[in-house]
Amino acid sequence: MIASAPGKVILFGEHAVVYGRHAVVSAINLRCYAKAEKASDITIESPLGKTSLDFKVHPYVSYAIKRFSEIRPVKGVYLKIWSDIPIASGLGSSSAVTVAVLKSLDLLFETNLSNEEIFELARKVELDVQGIGSGTDPFVSTFGGTWLIPERERIDIGDYLDLTVIYTGKASITSDMVRKVANLREMYGDVIERIFDAIDSISLRSISALKDRDFEALSFLVRTNQLLLKALGVSCREIDEIVNKLENLGIPAKITGAGGGGSVIALGSVDLDGYKCLSVSLNAEGVREEKV
Amino acid sequence: MIASAPGKVILFGEHAVVYGRHAVVSAINLRCYAKAEKASDITIESPLGKTSLDFKVHPYVSYAIKRFSEIRPVKGVYLKIWSDIPIASGLGSSSAVTVAVLKSLDLLFETNLSNEEIFELARKVELDVQGIGSGTDPFVSTFGGTWLIPERERIDIGDYLDLTVIYTGKASITSDMVRKVANLREMYGDVIERIFDAIDSISLRSISALKDRDFEALSFLVRTNQLLLKALGVSCREIDEIVNKLENLGIPAKITGAGGGGSVIALGSVDLDGYKCLSVSLNAEGVREEKV
Repeated sequence: MIASAPGKVILFGEHAVVYGRHAVVSAINLRCYAKAEKASDITIESPLGKTSLDFKVHPYVSYAIKRFSEIRPVKGVYLKIWSDIPIASGLGSSSAVTVAVLKSLDLLFETNLSNEEIFELARKVELDVQGIGSGTDPFVSTFGGTWLIPERERIDIGDYLDLTVIYTGKASITSDMVRKVANLREMYGDVIERIFDAIDSISLRSISALKDRDFEALSFLVRTNQLLLKALGVSCREIDEIVNKLENLGIPAKITGAGGGGSVIALGSVDLDGYKCLSVSLNAEGVREEKV
Repeated sequence: MIASAPGKVILFGEHAVVYGRHAVVSAINLRCYAKAEKASDITIESPLGKTSLDFKVHPYVSYAIKRFSEIRPVKGVYLKIWSDIPIASGLGSSSAVTVAVLKSLDLLFETNLSNEEIFELARKVELDVQGIGSGTDPFVSTFGGTWLIPERERIDIGDYLDLTVIYTGKASITSDMVRKVANLREMYGDVIERIFDAIDSISLRSISALKDRDFEALSFLVRTNQLLLKALGVSCREIDEIVNKLENLGIPAKITGAGGGGSVIALGSVDLDGYKCLSVSLNAEGVREEKV
């Protein structure tokens, strides 16, 4: 049985969302796939290698099997994983693999889990591996679509909006960036809180801009959010370079995710020389069975 | 009799101050000088030309004479004007010339005006010429020092802080930039208001940073204020270029004044190749008689 789950982009609001403000997140048409077959023991095969239950090499897959086993014990399974989603790029590949694996196990063992139940398991796996986590990534990977968080209020944007994801070539270390913002907040409390408020207002303003297909407003919001992220100290030379190059072409772009590396998103379809550019569409379907 | 009055820089808070937020302004050691001598008719000699009372060529000087005449009628005077302050650079040259002329007339005609009275006249001249105006420039030019506005609360910063003023080579049209921000506010009300709030918090945070000579904090505040001004759409290619060049040297810089051209201020003493750089010190003395 084959299942797949989508990656995600944060459109607006990263970092500020850690401090109670709003963010907007959308599932993208890059997916992770998991094929589950009955077997006498546990084998996990992925681009990372071929292992048994292995919490170092395959932490998300291994914890997914462990959590699923609380519902239906898994003695043996052959799991094959492949993915469109670049790893450590801020595109939610960890949650996508978790959700896809859970769904493939659900299909193989006919446990008939609801999406709510798959999400709850994926949420536990996120905490098993990371210790912390907002639950947003497993949520979006499970349900698909576009969401205002933390309320998890669906935003109906249709399928008109295409983005380009441009990889900086430098890993984004989320914990480092979250700590950096926390330090700035410690030193300049009020200034940083007011920047969070400005980002919050951008996320809220984007709802109507997304619904109305208002590209002028979206461009303004993308540009402004990027300047505010830069003010939070989470941009870097590599990101600035990409954003400036795109800006010179008249294309608004911003960090997606924690920053300090990782990926930049640009409105529309872009091919930027010398960079890995991935064209993605938003508002993708959530976890699903793949018929072969 | 010779009198002089200082120019000013806005350290933090331009544009936001138009919408009721705080700004910090300081008198600088660039001054405008006015020499007044008794004569049978009125002559104004300046780098702009030699005229009689002329509201086109010498609007500020002519209105200053007109307003002063309400206290003590001026039949004739020979006024010579010269200045360290570049014109239309956001450094308050108009108010400096107004205040210097009023003081030179006061000295020549022995009217013994207080600084409060000189400020009130200069304030009227600002409105005569511009129609609108916050009164900040004539205030700082008269009293000198460093001020939190709109409260006009003096900030005692001593004389340790040097800045470099770098001219973009492009005139700053204040009315255009004020209108641009008003338009953005019309379209994205809440986002723009929250950016004003963030700028407000920068102005307030700068008080302790200035008093404590906390260069790390001042650097952060200058950088962040510049990003927020860019978010308000009042930066331009020329400004970005200067700010980026300085940033690459590790020197924080920001627009001073309305932007869209005009001047950039950088912390410390800088010499940037290909640009007119003026080293200035802050917290300069207000209007005064120059003894020859």
